[in-house]
Amino acid sequence: MANRPPASGSARVERIPVAVLGATGSVGQRFVSLLADHPWFEPAALTASERSAGRPYGEAVRWVQTEPLPPAAAGMELGPTSPARTAGCPLVFSALDAAVAGPAERAFRDAGHTVVSNARSHRMERLVPLVVPEVNGDHLGLVAEQRRTCGGAGAIVTNPNCSTIGLALALKPLVDAFGVEQAHVVTLQAVSGAGLPGLPGLRILDNVIPFIPDEEEKIEAETQKILGRLEPGGVADHGIRISAQCTRVPVVDGHMLCVSLRLSRRARLPEVREALESFSAEPQALGLPSAPSRPVLLLDAADAPQPRLHRDLERGMAAVVGRLRPCPLFDVKFVVLSHNTLRGAAAGALLVGEQLVARGLLPGRVAPTADRP
Amino acid sequence: MANRPPASGSARVERIPVAVLGATGSVGQRFVSLLADHPWFEPAALTASERSAGRPYGEAVRWVQTEPLPPAAAGMELGPTSPARTAGCPLVFSALDAAVAGPAERAFRDAGHTVVSNARSHRMERLVPLVVPEVNGDHLGLVAEQRRTCGGAGAIVTNPNCSTIGLALALKPLVDAFGVEQAHVVTLQAVSGAGLPGLPGLRILDNVIPFIPDEEEKIEAETQKILGRLEPGGVADHGIRISAQCTRVPVVDGHMLCVSLRLSRRARLPEVREALESFSAEPQALGLPSAPSRPVLLLDAADAPQPRLHRDLERGMAAVVGRLRPCPLFDVKFVVLSHNTLRGAAAGALLVGEQLVARGLLPGRVAPTADRP
Amino acid sequence: MANRPPASGSARVERIPVAVLGATGSVGQRFVSLLADHPWFEPAALTASERSAGRPYGEAVRWVQTEPLPPAAAGMELGPTSPARTAGCPLVFSALDAAVAGPAERAFRDAGHTVVSNARSHRMERLVPLVVPEVNGDHLGLVAEQRRTCGGAGAIVTNPNCSTIGLALALKPLVDAFGVEQAHVVTLQAVSGAGLPGLPGLRILDNVIPFIPDEEEKIEAETQKILGRLEPGGVADHGIRISAQCTRVPVVDGHMLCVSLRLSRRARLPEVREALESFSAEPQALGLPSAPSRPVLLLDAADAPQPRLHRDLERGMAAVVGRLRPCPLFDVKFVVLSHNTLRGAAAGALLVGEQLVARGLLPGRVAPTADRP
Amino acid sequence: MANRPPASGSARVERIPVAVLGATGSVGQRFVSLLADHPWFEPAALTASERSAGRPYGEAVRWVQTEPLPPAAAGMELGPTSPARTAGCPLVFSALDAAVAGPAERAFRDAGHTVVSNARSHRMERLVPLVVPEVNGDHLGLVAEQRRTCGGAGAIVTNPNCSTIGLALALKPLVDAFGVEQAHVVTLQAVSGAGLPGLPGLRILDNVIPFIPDEEEKIEAETQKILGRLEPGGVADHGIRISAQCTRVPVVDGHMLCVSLRLSRRARLPEVREALESFSAEPQALGLPSAPSRPVLLLDAADAPQPRLHRDLERGMAAVVGRLRPCPLFDVKFVVLSHNTLRGAAAGALLVGEQLVARGLLPGRVAPTADRP
Repeated sequence: MANRPPASGSARVERIPVAVLGATGSVGQRFVSLLADHPWFEPAALTASERSAGRPYGEAVRWVQTEPLPPAAAGMELGPTSPARTAGCPLVFSALDAAVAGPAERAFRDAGHTVVSNARSHRMERLVPLVVPEVNGDHLGLVAEQRRTCGGAGAIVTNPNCSTIGLALALKPLVDAFGVEQAHVVTLQAVSGAGLPGLPGLRILDNVIPFIPDEEEKIEAETQKILGRLEPGGVADHGIRISAQCTRVPVVDGHMLCVSLRLSRRARLPEVREALESFSAEPQALGLPSAPSRPVLLLDAADAPQPRLHRDLERGMAAVVGRLRPCPLFDVKFVVLSHNTLRGAAAGALLVGEQLVARGLLPGRVAPTADRP
Repeated sequence: MANRPPASGSARVERIPVAVLGATGSVGQRFVSLLADHPWFEPAALTASERSAGRPYGEAVRWVQTEPLPPAAAGMELGPTSPARTAGCPLVFSALDAAVAGPAERAFRDAGHTVVSNARSHRMERLVPLVVPEVNGDHLGLVAEQRRTCGGAGAIVTNPNCSTIGLALALKPLVDAFGVEQAHVVTLQAVSGAGLPGLPGLRILDNVIPFIPDEEEKIEAETQKILGRLEPGGVADHGIRISAQCTRVPVVDGHMLCVSLRLSRRARLPEVREALESFSAEPQALGLPSAPSRPVLLLDAADAPQPRLHRDLERGMAAVVGRLRPCPLFDVKFVVLSHNTLRGAAAGALLVGEQLVARGLLPGRVAPTADRP
Repeated sequence: MANRPPASGSARVERIPVAVLGATGSVGQRFVSLLADHPWFEPAALTASERSAGRPYGEAVRWVQTEPLPPAAAGMELGPTSPARTAGCPLVFSALDAAVAGPAERAFRDAGHTVVSNARSHRMERLVPLVVPEVNGDHLGLVAEQRRTCGGAGAIVTNPNCSTIGLALALKPLVDAFGVEQAHVVTLQAVSGAGLPGLPGLRILDNVIPFIPDEEEKIEAETQKILGRLEPGGVADHGIRISAQCTRVPVVDGHMLCVSLRLSRRARLPEVREALESFSAEPQALGLPSAPSRPVLLLDAADAPQPRLHRDLERGMAAVVGRLRPCPLFDVKFVVLSHNTLRGAAAGALLVGEQLVARGLLPGRVAPTADRP
Repeated sequence: MANRPPASGSARVERIPVAVLGATGSVGQRFVSLLADHPWFEPAALTASERSAGRPYGEAVRWVQTEPLPPAAAGMELGPTSPARTAGCPLVFSALDAAVAGPAERAFRDAGHTVVSNARSHRMERLVPLVVPEVNGDHLGLVAEQRRTCGGAGAIVTNPNCSTIGLALALKPLVDAFGVEQAHVVTLQAVSGAGLPGLPGLRILDNVIPFIPDEEEKIEAETQKILGRLEPGGVADHGIRISAQCTRVPVVDGHMLCVSLRLSRRARLPEVREALESFSAEPQALGLPSAPSRPVLLLDAADAPQPRLHRDLERGMAAVVGRLRPCPLFDVKFVVLSHNTLRGAAAGALLVGEQLVARGLLPGRVAPTADRP
């Protein structure tokens, strides 16, 4: 188990100031919304493109969340996406587009910030952890090595692709209990996964698009790294073989994956069930604020999970599994649903940030409190 | 009745070469699709932005029609949107964005082309006819005056906004029979009306957007002009007072309008019904190729018209009316549906082009034949 | 102002036992979900059709809410829909279908229960109040007269049709400030308004249905009664003239209404705005648990309100108004959105129940507390 | 090759009278619509439930097709679903619900009719052919044996489940060329596959349902039989092993299947491609009226096939394949789309009927003509 941060009765009063890069986009808005009530983090800087910098957030943003725009954020002045104005924020959450995230996030790291990024730009770099906190929080051990190599207090940590996260969460207990050698995955992904503007309404209404650029490759590569073993100097691939087919469906939020697995050792269905249902990990043990009480939820209804009904269970932080049964070709198959803009993006990144703090990896900062009511 | 073009048995063999400006957009694609089988017009030039010019149409276009891309068009080389390469096309159909249509269409007119435009740029100009062929084909009389003023053989003729066309078609028989003084209109418009990319899927799924920029103003102003009286030097507004509220709904094709009318003289419902059902005009009399056999279709089912079921009736060229009944506040109310990318855009513009030819307004050209099987 | 119930520090400990009739349907499920955390009411009896009676609620229901089925409710045994087993529940919420609600609700009244019904069966009866708590809570005065006439402690109180409620809330401040003589209403209603099974998916995908049986008549008649004046022996119609056109759109929750109004006296737009924004009524003054802080929310964004983004504001209890502007034909027009299964059904009925208690109209019961945090 | 029916110049004048059982349902409506213009078959009897029998078809039906109700059909009197009134129809198309199809279709067979059924009731019976004309037209050989066994001129022939047909069409050329040992299938099925009322709109909007009762079993069992070898007394299973996961998505028409295959012998991708593209079979050779010119269409666009864009290609009769590529776990994978209410139901059954006639299996009838323009 990780080092438990020293709890302190008075710590709660002082939240850690954080910055959100790319705060006006759809993922950036989720960060702003979630940070409004966050017990550990306080949004102290919001950045946007040059065009919007200097304007109040509430004026520059085209708010598309169902929660109202937090009044405190509405009045904040947007800064440019550069480290010049975020000196007081040791922790930075990046909702930048992959098109600009690469150099921008490096600049923040060079300036001493610890960046938790939702973009794909740095995910596959050797010293950059690609983390699902319940699955491979130990990969955060790369942060120290990254700091030594880069020669500063900064670091980049990444959150996986939104469809990979649900898969990794559902695989982890089975990898631990039985080993998993092959995964056949067909995804039915929500339109919010493409951000804004994303997919035109005219293309997705009454339609399915059986192709999402680069998505199948991401699932295949990222899962390898997430399930891989931490070694000095990087992560050794897990060795699982994956075949992914990705589709986009007319659903607002919630990625569904139809998964068939070849296990390393024979397992009876009740054992598989038990492994999934009993799964709990460091975020649950530490009571991290964004952690779900159960990271994998198993539903028994014949027609579950469904995006509209189940994406918000556990505040959108669980991998919701259903239709668990034997597979005539592999060993076991099931359907898994996860909320792509909560667990799969902003809230998932916050959980990574919390884990960084809880593991004492944010220099000079401790978790305000590790207890939850 | 207009001048009937001299019919000629051999005329059918030679189609009139036409150009399509902005052929890669969604309306441009409709033009290309409809022209493939057109009995009078032959697509001889397709233009696009500089970026696509020089490439074969089939490679440059991202085809989103349900009909296959016509093989003949696939092989055509895209030209730039300038009159340099369209010399042989007396008739030009413009599917340009309003952002560029203004000067571009003027350039084609200056070069001697007769342009039928789907863009809003020139609609409200004094000498530019804004035409729904069944409603105000006589306004094409402005073409001669426009040519005199501009000093050439070229002219610009325009097709109304996609939501105005259905309204104008349904109003015309009532204007003729009873007079119409006021129209209260609430629209439920399809996403294809916004073109591509248009409205993001994330904004329209499970949603309604109660605002379409400039749309209400267009309905109010264009209807005035379409129903207006042709006078020397322009069109005198009709005088009808209109209140429009426009909404966008998650429907692919088909604009629905909920209409309440104040008539100039008292009319019993059977009279209104009779006026709508018996409506027929010049395009029907001349048997223009794109003309519907009945421009106004009245449906009796309690829950008609519906976009998905009824938008394609009469090949998408009719105003489909239902729920005709008295209005407690006005005199009569009904629901009208029209296909926004057929009658409301490409096919409607073709019908205007046909009417131009049939009326002898395309210099040196006669209709290949005015007969339809 | 109504009699304020005596506040009592210890009152909160004892909640009033209530029954839900028709608890397995979609509105019934909403009642069960909302009652799980209700500070005043405790679900003590759930009823269903004979077929389901005797089974645990969690087994008999096909749960379609996004909130999980409350564990306490899951274990409750469903009773038949008759007063035999609800003796301990002075207050009964009815989510029965109109097809059976008429005699069933009378039976509960005869047995001494006060029934708050969501069905249309009794809405237009002379001594039955039809209540929107912020609009005509005074109509609850009919309860005493109804009890005298029926000779018992029981009564029937009704909640309006789901599309009428948003209209009534938006009209009330304008009726008070300026008078309203005419209302032209076009609705775009969500599919949840038709319950389950309701409209087939095959009929509503990529479609609009411009007809909802009896809905236009309900809006016209119910608004008359809600805005009407309480008199001995019943309610005098308000006299407003209404024209309604109802449509069903592919939206899950949230009814949108496009409204144009003729006012009794001239009003400038800022005055109309001020009247809407400052509106507050008895439920707000009493701090009833289900009351929104602002019953009418005015949004300034050009494209607001939108069902998906705004239906949940104020926990789904507000009438959300946008696009306020002058009407070329009437005086003023706007768009109003309300959540049809929260304010428009279950949560709205709970608010009526709370108002009954707060006004001392539930024999022998006082509000557990009138304070809210 | 099958016996070619004697062509006859005058045959076209006399169409074969046919009956449609269950003509008011959604599949029945498709039959009526398609038969209106059919060159070989003439709709001579339409049947419905007792409740509708005796009424004109046009009054009893709730028409939900996009083509107008054929006027000739509108005036036909509906009969009860019994052989009493269909004596003159040697061929009967059944669109009956599985709930009633079993005994009803047997009654028609006993009365000497040849029934082509869309219901699942008799599909797996030993002597009942389950036919996709391009795949296993030879299985119609069972008809003679069935007639001998049942002792009459009647027979039952069946059309597979709507999701199986597209799979069988795409598999057939690969089975012939390389052998197929395993198929992993995930379906994304349209709501029209569930008929009317089918899935409630409230359950499918903004949602996916990852379960369709009995569908996975049907795909697994029916594919075995369709690909199986005709033997005396029945069909020997093919032996392919199939794993199916079925989902319902918010799409009107068009079932999409994500397929991964293990082939019996190694094949390079260009060979697979060639096998699919060159596929042609008896219906194409005979020029049957409902046959597509190409039963398998291979699309090259990266994001094809898509239900809305491609379901109507080849008049809805093709299996449209895209995204063909190697599979990391199996040998090859692709996406296949087929129109579930055309090829997958009514039009597919008509093609079976045409094949019966062309093979001379309708006693005393020959194909009016086997030529197509």
